[in-house]
Amino acid sequence: MTTVSNGVNVQALLDAREVLKGAPEAAQFTWRATSKWEDGVHSTTKIQNFFGLGQEQTHKTESVFDADHPEVFAAADNGITPIEYLLVGLASCLTAGVASVAQNRGIQLRSVEAVIEGEHDIRGILGVDSDVRNGYNDIKVTFKIDADASPQDIEALVAQSQKRSAVFDALANPTNITVAVS
Amino acid sequence: MTTVSNGVNVQALLDAREVLKGAPEAAQFTWRATSKWEDGVHSTTKIQNFFGLGQEQTHKTESVFDADHPEVFAAADNGITPIEYLLVGLASCLTAGVASVAQNRGIQLRSVEAVIEGEHDIRGILGVDSDVRNGYNDIKVTFKIDADASPQDIEALVAQSQKRSAVFDALANPTNITVAVS
Repeated sequence: MTTVSNGVNVQALLDAREVLKGAPEAAQFTWRATSKWEDGVHSTTKIQNFFGLGQEQTHKTESVFDADHPEVFAAADNGITPIEYLLVGLASCLTAGVASVAQNRGIQLRSVEAVIEGEHDIRGILGVDSDVRNGYNDIKVTFKIDADASPQDIEALVAQSQKRSAVFDALANPTNITVAVS
Repeated sequence: MTTVSNGVNVQALLDAREVLKGAPEAAQFTWRATSKWEDGVHSTTKIQNFFGLGQEQTHKTESVFDADHPEVFAAADNGITPIEYLLVGLASCLTAGVASVAQNRGIQLRSVEAVIEGEHDIRGILGVDSDVRNGYNDIKVTFKIDADASPQDIEALVAQSQKRSAVFDALANPTNITVAVS
């Protein structure tokens, strides 16, 4: 097997897997965000700190994200819509998985692109029809991958990425969410 | 009732509701993103165009989002993690809802802040224990709202926002996702 270089430190991930087998408490992460209403439906959300491996952690820099509604919703379009952020998360999670699995399987990637589409019937959020759900009805992700591998191996790569994807699971399956006022 | 100004054009939303009652096909939106693998688990995702109201639409500008893993995962931390993007979507969706419902109910907002935390057992994505899910085990959102309203009315505001939230529904309930290779 030739040595491949996709830039993923797979050995560190395999080592982490071994360590966390005997230390499940270290595997408990808390990801955090704080958001602030700006005006109208425009908000900014900041992310920097999280908890994991038994202690407080921090990203190198603070990231700030604008969300708004587009002009066709009579809003100012100061950022993408909240529901579009889910597509960012899903595309990037599956792509990270493809790179990691490829590295682990000795497959050299040359390029990975994905197009993602979410079908959304906005009658739900507008309260037009209570039988229409508020969220996406369907999401489709299509990968285009150039790699040193057969089409079958590339299919298997994407399948394994999906199987291990945090965001795929978070969207495909239900999660308990508590919303409170302090 | 005093005139409140939260910057939300509620009348346009109420008008849209009436129009879409008789034109369900115009309510079918497709939100889109394209992502590109950069190196390692770093990717960039672009969002600009979408489909809705029967035609192609566009945001005023293209938005580009970096996603990566943090240094504790032996990665370069060129952006937040994919699963953190879900928190951005949820916080901003509920906040937009609070502003819209407040406007509709004649409640003047002064400030709206939210803290959001997602509990994530990373043994799932690492394949340590197949009984551990890949996504969040639990998400908690805590609002702090300063407004011309009683605590009960503020509670009701947040409850109605949750009820109409696209992202709350997308995370709380399952969605069909198809992942393919072209």
